[in-house]
Amino acid sequence: GLDTYVREWPFALQLVVWFLRGVSRVILANNPLSGALILAALLWASPWQGLLGAVGVLASMLTAVLIGQDGAEVTAGLHGYNGMLVSLLMGVFSSAGDWYWWLLLPACLGAAACTFLYSGLSPVLDRWDLPVAVFPFNIVIVLYLLVTRPDNPYFPHYPSLPVGALQANATELNTAQLLQGIFLGVGQIFACDSLGPSLLILGATLLYSPLQALHAVLGSAAGTLAGLSVAVRHGSLYSGLSGFNGALGCMCVGGLFFTFSWRSHLFAIATAFLCSYVDIAFSNLLGTIGLPACSWAATLVVTLMLLLTGRGLATYRIPIGQVRS
Amino acid sequence: GLDTYVREWPFALQLVVWFLRGVSRVILANNPLSGALILAALLWASPWQGLLGAVGVLASMLTAVLIGQDGAEVTAGLHGYNGMLVSLLMGVFSSAGDWYWWLLLPACLGAAACTFLYSGLSPVLDRWDLPVAVFPFNIVIVLYLLVTRPDNPYFPHYPSLPVGALQANATELNTAQLLQGIFLGVGQIFACDSLGPSLLILGATLLYSPLQALHAVLGSAAGTLAGLSVAVRHGSLYSGLSGFNGALGCMCVGGLFFTFSWRSHLFAIATAFLCSYVDIAFSNLLGTIGLPACSWAATLVVTLMLLLTGRGLATYRIPIGQVRS
Amino acid sequence: GLDTYVREWPFALQLVVWFLRGVSRVILANNPLSGALILAALLWASPWQGLLGAVGVLASMLTAVLIGQDGAEVTAGLHGYNGMLVSLLMGVFSSAGDWYWWLLLPACLGAAACTFLYSGLSPVLDRWDLPVAVFPFNIVIVLYLLVTRPDNPYFPHYPSLPVGALQANATELNTAQLLQGIFLGVGQIFACDSLGPSLLILGATLLYSPLQALHAVLGSAAGTLAGLSVAVRHGSLYSGLSGFNGALGCMCVGGLFFTFSWRSHLFAIATAFLCSYVDIAFSNLLGTIGLPACSWAATLVVTLMLLLTGRGLATYRIPIGQVRS
Repeated sequence: GLDTYVREWPFALQLVVWFLRGVSRVILANNPLSGALILAALLWASPWQGLLGAVGVLASMLTAVLIGQDGAEVTAGLHGYNGMLVSLLMGVFSSAGDWYWWLLLPACLGAAACTFLYSGLSPVLDRWDLPVAVFPFNIVIVLYLLVTRPDNPYFPHYPSLPVGALQANATELNTAQLLQGIFLGVGQIFACDSLGPSLLILGATLLYSPLQALHAVLGSAAGTLAGLSVAVRHGSLYSGLSGFNGALGCMCVGGLFFTFSWRSHLFAIATAFLCSYVDIAFSNLLGTIGLPACSWAATLVVTLMLLLTGRGLATYRIPIGQVRS
Repeated sequence: GLDTYVREWPFALQLVVWFLRGVSRVILANNPLSGALILAALLWASPWQGLLGAVGVLASMLTAVLIGQDGAEVTAGLHGYNGMLVSLLMGVFSSAGDWYWWLLLPACLGAAACTFLYSGLSPVLDRWDLPVAVFPFNIVIVLYLLVTRPDNPYFPHYPSLPVGALQANATELNTAQLLQGIFLGVGQIFACDSLGPSLLILGATLLYSPLQALHAVLGSAAGTLAGLSVAVRHGSLYSGLSGFNGALGCMCVGGLFFTFSWRSHLFAIATAFLCSYVDIAFSNLLGTIGLPACSWAATLVVTLMLLLTGRGLATYRIPIGQVRS
Repeated sequence: GLDTYVREWPFALQLVVWFLRGVSRVILANNPLSGALILAALLWASPWQGLLGAVGVLASMLTAVLIGQDGAEVTAGLHGYNGMLVSLLMGVFSSAGDWYWWLLLPACLGAAACTFLYSGLSPVLDRWDLPVAVFPFNIVIVLYLLVTRPDNPYFPHYPSLPVGALQANATELNTAQLLQGIFLGVGQIFACDSLGPSLLILGATLLYSPLQALHAVLGSAAGTLAGLSVAVRHGSLYSGLSGFNGALGCMCVGGLFFTFSWRSHLFAIATAFLCSYVDIAFSNLLGTIGLPACSWAATLVVTLMLLLTGRGLATYRIPIGQVRS
């Protein structure tokens, strides 16, 4: 396939392929083309964010080489996506404005820390055949935001609000914005909240696997419904923040870690709802001290679904070593 | 025994037996008669709470069947007690009043989520031969209360106070109320704070095992003493809330997971004190954001005691597979 | 060696050796002489603290004998250092003043609880060949401070502030105090903040292993740098509180759990920075409810480094059973 073909390319080109593969890993894909589309989407939304993301992937991959991680893991892009998410989120939360070059320092350090965490968590999770997923990203970004409180003189950032916080002047729901929020939910996986780039990211998912793309939209819709059912802030629904955990959970169960069947499809939708409610809970918890809930909910719920022993789901489980990669 | 006899009954009656067994599991028993007494106690205390509890058990058992859990586990009532506790606690914390029928929706969903957690946690805890116990209940109820903050428009609930919060006009201790609190501590295992039903629940424990009942009262007394030693709110002592974690811990070590001996009896009392102090700590921690400490303390401390390697306690340990069930 | 020689001494003297070994375990040493020097340093800094520390070691060791822990573990001092740290920290945080004799009660109970936690955590951590380290101390002290809130009538204590809290009237940095803070960082491992005793503790480390002492100072310096880079409170830098997590992490990786090489030396310095940043994060998190970050950061980061699978560090890993003890 592509892999043997790539091996004969010049090193610089090979590096680009590994890099783009790392980018595509965030949406659970493993495809340089999807990665290129996503990077284009991010650069379209904000060139500074695109740069930050790219730096994150590179810092993370380089650290993996330095600490002697398995080469196959590096070329498969497994040591890039956590670092990318960390540096993207650092950029989004930074209140120092775009092109604040000092931010590259914590971005690189945070991305490097992700690789340490990836390497350290894998033997623990391996015991139950669980993937490391985005645990490193979620841990590092929360630690970063805790180290640099909102009023930090060097690295200030915006505090997050609980999604359940009462709204002073709540207006009626705007259905168009609600529908748009469902598609923004896919973009929010990369902390991107413009419609065009979000649709391009959805396209990158579609390119890798139409099933994944379908589940991403379904999951985001489920997240929006869950948010409506407990009256979260409208802003959270419109921006897609209510949807992206559901989208991630739905994609993992519906098209990645389990073979497709009507049963696993139903489980994927149940997972999307579960992810969304847990995300609301985490947002209300972490929001009390100004922290975002990131993708903790999707990560923990998918880990739980992978552990289920009931025959209804466990029979469709694909061993981690054989997950399309 | 009863089991082979039951197998010839009509299905509806069998279902009732499984259901009542699930109810009795909360007090670590496995006896339909104890379950019936407890259900009667709950209905006596509040018909709405009794209904909620019953719905929780059923939703949890049904989910277990749907996701294909082992049939033997279902008939033993292992997939009911967590769901029951979740729906009971949802009812107790709800500030929408009794007979608020919409509450059945989160009660069913929460009870279903318990079964998912039970199924997912068991392979992790199995590694160290540990029971899942009430981890699912504790996780789900905390998440539910986080999702629906006190001021939620659909599912409002009362916030919890830290037990160590200073009392504005502290009066002298009332010994009679203190003694009553010890017995209420047994009822509080089911979130029940009336004396009559609490004594009936103690009776249900006595019916299953006098040793368990003795340890329940001893543990609740130890919890009250622990509360006195660090000056918790009087209300917490009088209502039995200071005692129920001690009661649970004492029952688990004194009469369930370890063979009875003077040594394990002493350990049971030590466990009761440990549970109570940890419960006070958790209540002071979670209370700062309005959350209750539930039975986290008892669950974690008993898990710790089951892990002890010291010969003093480990030699009396009964393997989980052989615990009277 | 010394061990066979000690076995012929009278029991009282043997007990003293075990006791002093337990004291030296806090700085990762295993040497009665280092232990004696440390005890002298603590008594010099504050006789009351010295007494508390000694009581903590004894209560912890006695509990280990009572619950039937392995005799070899007790004589090696493994069941003493956690208890010592708990009682020392209880003394430091107590706002009831020195020689408040009632404090011996929680000190003994807390030290005993450490032994329970040590025994219970070891089978869990053993699965990944990880040491129990100071997990028990960190858990027990946080629980104690939660049980007795600052305004407790019997056991009042000082609340902790987040290190990142903005300073009203920040003055310029004092270089002399900053340098002194680096050495105080070694003393802060025992919650000691006077220069003389801190240097004596550094001497005790030097006596056991010059490499350890070097890494202790290097780690403390790294911690101070990390603190400067995110503008923590000057008081935290001057008192050595910013340095001690870095010192602990640097000692563990540079001279205890890994064989010395240039690579592990570089990793030790990286670990020191990682520990320090994580410590700042934890301090900002726990400080919001008045709790200190203790040595959670060093404990968790070192555990992570021991789990790393990358060949760069994993090849130097010494199995826990063979760590110099």
